[in-house]
Amino acid sequence: MSVITIERKVLEKNDVIANENRKTFKDRNLFVLNLVSSPGSGKTSLIERTIALSRNKFRIGVIEGDLQTNLDAERVSAYNVPVVQIVTHGACHLEADLVRDAFYRVDKNDFDLLIIENVGNLVCPAGYDLGENMKVVIVSTTEGDDKPLKYPAMFRNASALIINKVDLIPYLNCNLDVLKKNAISINPSLKLFETSCFTDVGLESWIEWLNSHIQNR
Amino acid sequence: MSVITIERKVLEKNDVIANENRKTFKDRNLFVLNLVSSPGSGKTSLIERTIALSRNKFRIGVIEGDLQTNLDAERVSAYNVPVVQIVTHGACHLEADLVRDAFYRVDKNDFDLLIIENVGNLVCPAGYDLGENMKVVIVSTTEGDDKPLKYPAMFRNASALIINKVDLIPYLNCNLDVLKKNAISINPSLKLFETSCFTDVGLESWIEWLNSHIQNR
Repeated sequence: MSVITIERKVLEKNDVIANENRKTFKDRNLFVLNLVSSPGSGKTSLIERTIALSRNKFRIGVIEGDLQTNLDAERVSAYNVPVVQIVTHGACHLEADLVRDAFYRVDKNDFDLLIIENVGNLVCPAGYDLGENMKVVIVSTTEGDDKPLKYPAMFRNASALIINKVDLIPYLNCNLDVLKKNAISINPSLKLFETSCFTDVGLESWIEWLNSHIQNR
Repeated sequence: MSVITIERKVLEKNDVIANENRKTFKDRNLFVLNLVSSPGSGKTSLIERTIALSRNKFRIGVIEGDLQTNLDAERVSAYNVPVVQIVTHGACHLEADLVRDAFYRVDKNDFDLLIIENVGNLVCPAGYDLGENMKVVIVSTTEGDDKPLKYPAMFRNASALIINKVDLIPYLNCNLDVLKKNAISINPSLKLFETSCFTDVGLESWIEWLNSHIQNR
């Protein structure tokens, strides 16, 4: 029995549970995002600003993934939304069964959008369906403009790309046009946003886009 | 047969080859670093600046790891040092057999320090010995001050931590003292450096430290 076979079995089992999750989310009329990025690209900050700026449009619930801590759930819970922390104890990505178990524990007080913040890792989460409607990948301008070429699976599997920390561009060696061109070369259908969770630039169009998906779910 | 058992066998096989690599490196009188970080923390930039600033002290060879491209090897080869690219075709970390095969292909023109740049991933490379003398982890100030707590295995297994992009601190929500305190709480024996590969601040002491290890190898 080869390792490849084992990996395929893990993925097949994951896909079965992911499809069950998708049905559960649909039955509850939820729009669900799987938010992925490198460590420190701004996933939690984006969630915080999205909650703060969308209060009169839609309601949000959050599932947080982390290797070891509940720091992110603490940050998000300050915004008075339902939030559950998954601690993976070192595992490098979320899987559908962890999300299913976390969803049981979320306070189901009527939210429209469920955001699942994956473990900070631009590689492994690309291969695991959690039952979401779409993956959204964040890349920070501080990471440079070559990341879509170097980590293509994540950009290929995402529906939207958020280019975050654009306020730092004057201090960086990051060419925004090259970054966008690289992303589109990997996935021509990527919806692009340019944001800063420091200055809130770009967040209005991100929230409008989210809102249109939530209204049409 | 469980997945855990398979993983253990993979790790055991890796450890055998890593120990063979270590013997090969020792026989050739090489000091070997395994350089690990998130995507975009500055591994390649650190290698570039280290080569440029250490020319009159020691000689460097480089093995580059990447999921898909040879962009980093192209950058490093401009400095006229021996360099070989490993493309993992999507795999999230380097393993000892890949390093062994790459080492056969490095031009053995007398270098003292071999730097292995791992895949950009703050999780998976932590568990894989490549036969190096030490792991060095880079964290960028742009990633925030909580990363040692959230990705502890990598900081626990490293001998040195390079806090990079310190020139950006005035524009960030990153508390350098908190970052250092968090790192030391995970691994009290970590040697700390604060650097910028933009301004070269901190690189002199990094190169002096490297030089002392190379002279005493």
